[in-house]
Amino acid sequence: MATQNDDVIGVAVVGIGRIGKVHCCNLLRLPRVNLLYIIDADRKAAEDFVQQFNLTATALHIDEIEQAYGDESLQAVIVCCPTNMHEAHVKNALQRGKAVMCEKPLSFSLNAIMDCYQMAEKNGKPLFCAFNRRFDPQTSAIRSRIPDAVGKLKVVKTISRDHPRNSIEYLRISGGIILDSCIHDVDMLLWMSRQIPKTIYAIGHAHFEDIRGIGDVDQVFVTMKFPDGAMGHIDLCREAVFGHDQRLEVFGSKGMLVGQNVRPQSYEISDGTGQSLPPIHDSCMTRYNDSYLQEMIHFISVVRGEATLSVTGRDTMVTTLCCHATNESLSTGLPVDVLDFVKKKFPELAYLLNGQNGSC
Amino acid sequence: MATQNDDVIGVAVVGIGRIGKVHCCNLLRLPRVNLLYIIDADRKAAEDFVQQFNLTATALHIDEIEQAYGDESLQAVIVCCPTNMHEAHVKNALQRGKAVMCEKPLSFSLNAIMDCYQMAEKNGKPLFCAFNRRFDPQTSAIRSRIPDAVGKLKVVKTISRDHPRNSIEYLRISGGIILDSCIHDVDMLLWMSRQIPKTIYAIGHAHFEDIRGIGDVDQVFVTMKFPDGAMGHIDLCREAVFGHDQRLEVFGSKGMLVGQNVRPQSYEISDGTGQSLPPIHDSCMTRYNDSYLQEMIHFISVVRGEATLSVTGRDTMVTTLCCHATNESLSTGLPVDVLDFVKKKFPELAYLLNGQNGSC
Amino acid sequence: MATQNDDVIGVAVVGIGRIGKVHCCNLLRLPRVNLLYIIDADRKAAEDFVQQFNLTATALHIDEIEQAYGDESLQAVIVCCPTNMHEAHVKNALQRGKAVMCEKPLSFSLNAIMDCYQMAEKNGKPLFCAFNRRFDPQTSAIRSRIPDAVGKLKVVKTISRDHPRNSIEYLRISGGIILDSCIHDVDMLLWMSRQIPKTIYAIGHAHFEDIRGIGDVDQVFVTMKFPDGAMGHIDLCREAVFGHDQRLEVFGSKGMLVGQNVRPQSYEISDGTGQSLPPIHDSCMTRYNDSYLQEMIHFISVVRGEATLSVTGRDTMVTTLCCHATNESLSTGLPVDVLDFVKKKFPELAYLLNGQNGSC
Amino acid sequence: MATQNDDVIGVAVVGIGRIGKVHCCNLLRLPRVNLLYIIDADRKAAEDFVQQFNLTATALHIDEIEQAYGDESLQAVIVCCPTNMHEAHVKNALQRGKAVMCEKPLSFSLNAIMDCYQMAEKNGKPLFCAFNRRFDPQTSAIRSRIPDAVGKLKVVKTISRDHPRNSIEYLRISGGIILDSCIHDVDMLLWMSRQIPKTIYAIGHAHFEDIRGIGDVDQVFVTMKFPDGAMGHIDLCREAVFGHDQRLEVFGSKGMLVGQNVRPQSYEISDGTGQSLPPIHDSCMTRYNDSYLQEMIHFISVVRGEATLSVTGRDTMVTTLCCHATNESLSTGLPVDVLDFVKKKFPELAYLLNGQNGSC
Repeated sequence: MATQNDDVIGVAVVGIGRIGKVHCCNLLRLPRVNLLYIIDADRKAAEDFVQQFNLTATALHIDEIEQAYGDESLQAVIVCCPTNMHEAHVKNALQRGKAVMCEKPLSFSLNAIMDCYQMAEKNGKPLFCAFNRRFDPQTSAIRSRIPDAVGKLKVVKTISRDHPRNSIEYLRISGGIILDSCIHDVDMLLWMSRQIPKTIYAIGHAHFEDIRGIGDVDQVFVTMKFPDGAMGHIDLCREAVFGHDQRLEVFGSKGMLVGQNVRPQSYEISDGTGQSLPPIHDSCMTRYNDSYLQEMIHFISVVRGEATLSVTGRDTMVTTLCCHATNESLSTGLPVDVLDFVKKKFPELAYLLNGQNGSC
Repeated sequence: MATQNDDVIGVAVVGIGRIGKVHCCNLLRLPRVNLLYIIDADRKAAEDFVQQFNLTATALHIDEIEQAYGDESLQAVIVCCPTNMHEAHVKNALQRGKAVMCEKPLSFSLNAIMDCYQMAEKNGKPLFCAFNRRFDPQTSAIRSRIPDAVGKLKVVKTISRDHPRNSIEYLRISGGIILDSCIHDVDMLLWMSRQIPKTIYAIGHAHFEDIRGIGDVDQVFVTMKFPDGAMGHIDLCREAVFGHDQRLEVFGSKGMLVGQNVRPQSYEISDGTGQSLPPIHDSCMTRYNDSYLQEMIHFISVVRGEATLSVTGRDTMVTTLCCHATNESLSTGLPVDVLDFVKKKFPELAYLLNGQNGSC
Repeated sequence: MATQNDDVIGVAVVGIGRIGKVHCCNLLRLPRVNLLYIIDADRKAAEDFVQQFNLTATALHIDEIEQAYGDESLQAVIVCCPTNMHEAHVKNALQRGKAVMCEKPLSFSLNAIMDCYQMAEKNGKPLFCAFNRRFDPQTSAIRSRIPDAVGKLKVVKTISRDHPRNSIEYLRISGGIILDSCIHDVDMLLWMSRQIPKTIYAIGHAHFEDIRGIGDVDQVFVTMKFPDGAMGHIDLCREAVFGHDQRLEVFGSKGMLVGQNVRPQSYEISDGTGQSLPPIHDSCMTRYNDSYLQEMIHFISVVRGEATLSVTGRDTMVTTLCCHATNESLSTGLPVDVLDFVKKKFPELAYLLNGQNGSC
Repeated sequence: MATQNDDVIGVAVVGIGRIGKVHCCNLLRLPRVNLLYIIDADRKAAEDFVQQFNLTATALHIDEIEQAYGDESLQAVIVCCPTNMHEAHVKNALQRGKAVMCEKPLSFSLNAIMDCYQMAEKNGKPLFCAFNRRFDPQTSAIRSRIPDAVGKLKVVKTISRDHPRNSIEYLRISGGIILDSCIHDVDMLLWMSRQIPKTIYAIGHAHFEDIRGIGDVDQVFVTMKFPDGAMGHIDLCREAVFGHDQRLEVFGSKGMLVGQNVRPQSYEISDGTGQSLPPIHDSCMTRYNDSYLQEMIHFISVVRGEATLSVTGRDTMVTTLCCHATNESLSTGLPVDVLDFVKKKFPELAYLLNGQNGSC
């Protein structure tokens, strides 16, 4: 058996659901990483996964988590349990001196998010909120070409249509379409424009009866106006029948970058009816497959001290504040001035909107 | 640590070069597979790999291979050392009762290939020659649509242009463009058409001085005529400056299937000069990345007894015979009647061309 | 010379500028049409055109127009002089019993437009306002697939970016970006959705100093919400450096239709930097070349009594009203309730928004 | 009515069939051109066309052709009657001092073609054989990028698949697939490579029973090897069910140019089954619509003395000789050395293959 290197990073995964499994498989592909613990409220699920992949990792029940945290070789914890448990696990891991990666949203509560980041700072450990789309190779390639290929930015737009539609059970506890889904697009607009919007206007409609029944909408348009005159638009839908429709367009004085849908296969069929192409990716899991690997590579590099966290606490907070402003516009039917809104509703956080928007 | 399952397949990889590493990484991603041994003529290389990925596998020098073969839990051996060592390792592993996967070509010698398959049959163990392109998802999707989307087959064509160009050192020992590279395309034409060609005509030219210097060519056209009137064409080049150009076209009475080049990223840049797209894959390693995983999944399934070997010994032999006939046409400048050629040059193998071409 | 058929339609073109020449050339291509008069304020321009194409048409100065109107074989008049002269020529021709086709906008004044249509009705002659985009084969093909390919409509969006940028001289007298340019997109959204929007929200920005100087904007986003919950969006810019960017997207419960940019040539260039495509059309004249022919075919069919006018007076009025509501939102920064706005500003036209939106 | 300019070119069209009508409509679109006579064996057809388009042209029966030739203002004759009448009309017009444009093939007889060109030279009048594909904007754009975008040429390939399939009646008198159809592709390979092939190898098959019945084939592969090592390939079929499949690929040391199929409309449909595109052009008439206009513009320019004939007699002769060599290979099953073949079969024409291939 190989001797363990001094620089091997020991990792625990908390929650072995769909995304937890993805993270585990990606950890297995990374050099000098040791997947030490798989922890779940369902110990059998953790054990099955260990056995299936013939892992050396230890399967633990969530109540045995202290056993993992007591292990000095454990340096990083991946939190991918349900959102309502994020805060507790993130804080616990940070207090035990572990680096933490947590699925978005960190919490439905802005205060809880703020608390988590303050604890991360106090403990000198990174807290990485997994805005995975930033790590999609296509998306990050586009951003890297701003402004050289775009010139003065005029327009940034996303189209995000989910597939398959989530169950009403999930949607009921999702926190609503803006915080659950639109948050990715809001992050994109801020990240691409490197600005915080001055005004946000949103309209929504529930085309699905069951979604109307829970007081949510399933189709949303969000319009943002940025301080320098650039405009942002989000076209968001809970279902596209033809696949996971994910596009991005950045337009400016010198040119345009368009992130098209990714098609798993590049063959074409021609017959008497025309030409057809195989479907685009049918879920975020396959479409953003690569982004999950890339965000893990980034997190491990941060843990190793080889990189700086690219999604800061301020990024997460500002994006979440903009989501709340979007919800305000949705409910009032009027454009929202973001700074006024934050000053009124979250006065203690208004300072986040001041000064340069360096990290966005 | 997880208890090892009864159905875990123990695997050894012989040769930890470029493709050996790919196979190891793919084995790590497969459930119920245990990578037990990494064996190389350079023990340090094997050890480094084990350490880098924090593996439980044992690193061995090639001279210590018996230590691995004596391990009853070792069931499958992946042979990816240089071609001149293939035959010895394949035979050794088969004799010790291991299932074997070996990179193509099994050998430059037709007799050696025949011997290997006979030994596999005698020992009742699968010998899998890794024609990876058959496992490319796009390629196999296309074949699965023949004949339903194509009708009566009329044309099958491939374009295969390498990138980057191989070094002259490699090309000198490569066995020539036909056996080294064109063999994949010959396999494609036979596999897609499910036939053995009646005649083969080939022309070649050396555009590169150094390749002319070693008596090889770098650009080849191969034309095949199949018994039922279908025609095949191969357009092969040792270098395309714009990337690893790999296309496939199948045309028939009902329609056409075209396998286009795969582009790692799907964004577009528009500016005053027009529209540009990011490059296609820049090597076979990235272009056929998925095929290496899929062929490994197939091999492990065969070892488990859950699948039948999809590349038979006859497939490998017939494809290699057609490569020799192609070389004959290249050197004579005349079309070659495949059956006549085999009867004259490899009379003992002529029976392979008889009867139904079931497996192709 | 051929004997003139009873069913030959005699036509006069008033204004032989850029679009006037296009209309003339299209008239030459149509069977059973006789281009009788070319009339312009610059008689030399009319004469030159007649001579260049070796036409049988008579070149007239605008002051000699009565000579044409007195000709009984003249049945149809194409008005393509500057906008400020539209009303007079349209009314004159209608009063003389001629069918009229007029470039958009009929007039900057809503009352003038209304007057023209009332005169057309009174005289029993068609008045065709040339919303040419409806006649673009791609655009009309898309509309013809709603709803069968789209299902319940959820989203309709256009992107319209001009190329090359208009001169500031033109823009100064253009009537502003909404009435001059956005009117086409407003028409598209109403025509595709077959509805009149309930609310309109618009934001704009002047990125060009000279355009800011004349009090106009050059980049606009318009958001519409339709009565049945469908949403519309317009992304409009006075300049895209890469060509005349014209796209359309219609999305619904069953699928999506996307009108992509049209590329005059379909070749691809691959080199070491990637793959590039020739530019898209570089102006509306080439992009919508076919639409000008198709709208002329439609108009001549209407004159012949073989078709019903597909752009009604109500269409033109409602689209123009929505443009005014868009301007209102641009200037107030607030969403505009279309019905309230019309009731307040154009109370006598509010009835146009009532009842079924049959023709849109 | 306009006074006729001194520089107006008077034109007669001989044969008002499908392509004759196309030529007439294109002539109507050209400035300073006067379509004087429409001549056909069916006088009614000529008269109907004149009446339909309200033309000033005179309709004549073919037996009245002298009436046209006696008209001094007639300078150019477009010959588009059946092939067996080409020679007589071409010679007659040339002798009367008219410039001539004639559909390909000029004649099935090489000697007749040679005679026609010699008569053109003797009379100092241009004879333009309408290889229309050279005038396709996409095709000519590609050639203009050789060699700058391609570098040293290695490969030139065409795919030409017809749609809809010709009737067996037409095919019976067509002169066979090589002279009737493949001649366009042979011209492309010579024109793109600027060389005359050293060897030609062709295989064919009749998939259609009726075509086999007339001793012809419907699917052909032609392989050419050029003196500098470049290779050419033609993939030709009498029917593609999905449309008029016309592609071109040029590959070399620096890059590649690919002429893709042209799609009349650029919209996409996405639904649960994937993405589909409208069909490609469904016949040569629509696919090469623009080429007919461009070749006419070229011919008129030549008549005006403003351009030099871009398809020379030598081009036509050499292309036709290569077609005969292709037929020789088809019938013998062996590669044909072009120079040897011409020396043996057409010794008096062998000089055409000598020296620089300037015009090709």
